[in-house]
Amino acid sequence: MHEISIDLCDNILGANRRIAERNDELLEEHGIRSFDFLGPVGSGKTKLIETIADRLRETGRRIGVIAGDVAGDDDYRRFRAHDLTVANLNTGKECHLDAHMVEHALEKLPLDDIELLFIENVGNIVCPADFPLGTTLRVMVISLTEGDDMVRKHPQIFQCVDLVVINKLDLARAMEVDPQILVGDLDRVNPELPVFLTDAKHDTGVAELMNAMGL
Amino acid sequence: MHEISIDLCDNILGANRRIAERNDELLEEHGIRSFDFLGPVGSGKTKLIETIADRLRETGRRIGVIAGDVAGDDDYRRFRAHDLTVANLNTGKECHLDAHMVEHALEKLPLDDIELLFIENVGNIVCPADFPLGTTLRVMVISLTEGDDMVRKHPQIFQCVDLVVINKLDLARAMEVDPQILVGDLDRVNPELPVFLTDAKHDTGVAELMNAMGL
Repeated sequence: MHEISIDLCDNILGANRRIAERNDELLEEHGIRSFDFLGPVGSGKTKLIETIADRLRETGRRIGVIAGDVAGDDDYRRFRAHDLTVANLNTGKECHLDAHMVEHALEKLPLDDIELLFIENVGNIVCPADFPLGTTLRVMVISLTEGDDMVRKHPQIFQCVDLVVINKLDLARAMEVDPQILVGDLDRVNPELPVFLTDAKHDTGVAELMNAMGL
Repeated sequence: MHEISIDLCDNILGANRRIAERNDELLEEHGIRSFDFLGPVGSGKTKLIETIADRLRETGRRIGVIAGDVAGDDDYRRFRAHDLTVANLNTGKECHLDAHMVEHALEKLPLDDIELLFIENVGNIVCPADFPLGTTLRVMVISLTEGDDMVRKHPQIFQCVDLVVINKLDLARAMEVDPQILVGDLDRVNPELPVFLTDAKHDTGVAELMNAMGL
């Protein structure tokens, strides 16, 4: 069983990489900068994209979103309420988006009318690591609600993202979690990784993050 | 790619089921009742097991724990501090425990000296659904920190567990989440599923859950 898994795994990951390269080329042809937002359920990925989109409104930048979830259209409807161009992407049973799913979602978006694309991945902090989607940057969003040991428990994903956001700073007291423990663990697992502290609900720290994202 | 995946998937899931049956038989031979605790990162699985173990202390029941995580020994050390017999199980890159990993963890535990076994699965709410471990009951632990839309976004896992716990009730106000929305969604996705509301940190609602678990 193990050997078959490893062979198939290489095939799947190799196929994903090739499709991710195609996505990257397609987005570049259209002059679109793209961001894969990863992170666990409830870390505030949707809210953070909403807050960034609200801040970008006055700049007139045209924004597209792919709302990835196992099921439902809760996030799709939230993004639509912010007047964003959105494709809903349900994975059915899969715990992560892959480049092939995103390739099909891109077919549904008017790429000529979009300058920035935000892809909200399924809430999960293990599997998405292996499946790059072809985006310009990968932004990992964690929050204080996952506890102060979450970085130590999941060190791998912090090796393959470009930025980390520690969100929900407003809940530090209620959660009894010191964000500096997470910052210290991040420094140990990947000292090169830029870390941003935010409270997306109250628009704190988001400007600094956007600056690092080139927005 | 898709067809190969499906064939292999059947093989892997079939192999998992067979090993799960062996685990089940082994545990039954030793008269051990066992519980697979599933749920997302930060829903309070560790704390809930600790609280249950503390409540069982005066009964003299002998308790074993398998602490499953991608990496590290944070939970292992927490359970050890409660004087529990613990095996640490790191999955490396896998986002869920499987029956084969648990089979090896059982080899490390003194099964003749255990009456109750708690297995804490990796924090994830998609993949563990497909991998029964051979336990008596599967207990799904969610909490208010994942938001009020989490059941709608992940309906499948609630089809293959025996009990659901909505934990961290103490955070309802801080999270601005109404637990009754989760209760209503659970009733829609699986009306047969018993649901328990707890605040494991302050030992609220845990006695009712333990009663339903036969403890």
